[in-house]
Amino acid sequence: METSSITYHKIIRVGADGAKEVEDCLAIEEPLEIQLAFMASGKRQGKSISVTMRTPGNDPELAAGFLFTEGIIRSKSEIAGIRHSVLDENRVLVTCADGFEPLLGSLERNFYTTSSCGVCGKASIDAIRTRSAFTAGEDQLVVEKSIVQQLADQIGRHQQVFESTGGLHASALFDLNGHFLMLREDVGRHNALDKLIGAALLADNLPLSQHVLLLSGRASFELIQKAAMAGIRIVAAIGAPSSLAVQLAGESGITLAGFVKKDKFNIYTGQHRIRSI
Amino acid sequence: METSSITYHKIIRVGADGAKEVEDCLAIEEPLEIQLAFMASGKRQGKSISVTMRTPGNDPELAAGFLFTEGIIRSKSEIAGIRHSVLDENRVLVTCADGFEPLLGSLERNFYTTSSCGVCGKASIDAIRTRSAFTAGEDQLVVEKSIVQQLADQIGRHQQVFESTGGLHASALFDLNGHFLMLREDVGRHNALDKLIGAALLADNLPLSQHVLLLSGRASFELIQKAAMAGIRIVAAIGAPSSLAVQLAGESGITLAGFVKKDKFNIYTGQHRIRSI
Repeated sequence: METSSITYHKIIRVGADGAKEVEDCLAIEEPLEIQLAFMASGKRQGKSISVTMRTPGNDPELAAGFLFTEGIIRSKSEIAGIRHSVLDENRVLVTCADGFEPLLGSLERNFYTTSSCGVCGKASIDAIRTRSAFTAGEDQLVVEKSIVQQLADQIGRHQQVFESTGGLHASALFDLNGHFLMLREDVGRHNALDKLIGAALLADNLPLSQHVLLLSGRASFELIQKAAMAGIRIVAAIGAPSSLAVQLAGESGITLAGFVKKDKFNIYTGQHRIRSI
Repeated sequence: METSSITYHKIIRVGADGAKEVEDCLAIEEPLEIQLAFMASGKRQGKSISVTMRTPGNDPELAAGFLFTEGIIRSKSEIAGIRHSVLDENRVLVTCADGFEPLLGSLERNFYTTSSCGVCGKASIDAIRTRSAFTAGEDQLVVEKSIVQQLADQIGRHQQVFESTGGLHASALFDLNGHFLMLREDVGRHNALDKLIGAALLADNLPLSQHVLLLSGRASFELIQKAAMAGIRIVAAIGAPSSLAVQLAGESGITLAGFVKKDKFNIYTGQHRIRSI
């Protein structure tokens, strides 16, 4: 557990037996600014890319994951270094490798395609397909029904900060046999997934095409989009998926399960990858 | 219930007794673009302000609430009209009243203050105080402990789409006697609150200083910031608050309760407004 992910605060606990002051844990929420340094037209450039409200911890992974899932960088080799600002621990500086100019147009393109996608989100779905670094070919991936059912139990055991604060989302990665590989937590569900994908990027483990991604809460369009960028083919969520999450999963060839519990779950798309049902 | 807030999708329901195909409800998630039209320097200007992933329904309220809680407009009188684009139901056009120039600098200022707030979020907290249209003077607000305890039960009864999809956040408004006034739902928790505050703005009911706001999930910095903008003094959340939510509530004079259940809850700030504890 990152000690910097939680803080203590005196609260009044009110119950049937009255009220008492106790010390309680809170999940820390603080802004993180991601700055990018690169060479363009022979000059050193710096650009502030994003400010996100996040839980401190794994900041370099968060920055790398965000830049990757937004399509601004495409591989680890495009990053020369990532470090915190000396003056501000809520600012991370990402230096691009020599000769690499980040794809900043994709930030505005994302905005444009999102804003133009009209009734059905079609343009966004096309955009994600174009931008993803990994082409989704045929695969023979299969997971057993019983493995999906024990995921929820596993995430509970590994999600330490959630237990103490009740306040964090988590993204967890498993292999196809249901073995736990890693977990990242954050007050923002998109940040938890960016941390996980960033960790995989920095360890040169992308694409995550032989894995199962477990989301601790609901599955939104944004989370499925990030999963698709990382080449993930099987996503299970403890909570409900949204309509656009289901649509994007379907069109991206992702298997999406929701409401995953010990004894039951729903399959929204890609049922051929779940066996014994 | 807005019929356009949910959609149907064939799923595989996997349980102890095998798997079967059933039709299930999904919460709709689609992008909404907010465009602002106004006169500046004698010319008609149009500007795309934001794209947010939202659940359709109450879009004009969402647009009005977003513009208000971001500090771009300060009152209903600054809005001449709000309507959907004829060509795209995921675009809302807000026309400013004659002679009013929207405070677009606040969008960039928000970014700047957020990015500069360093370790503790102090600058953001100062910024919200400056921007809020309502000054928080002394008040004599009091709610009974028993009223806080029955809020969770009430939100369940009124949150219809959540019941059918399991996929929506809600913000609900009560008076100080615990009487239910209104509820708004969305896949995004910030949108649910913007819809509620936008509805109050358009009905000329701001500030909401004699009310209790109930949040169906966790309380983040952003939600407390929006509550402060609307003059709300008492916030209760079914889930956990973050560290920065507690800090902002404390410095804004907001009473914040969390983990609100039938028989117990926690008070994080402003305990003097909750009686019989």
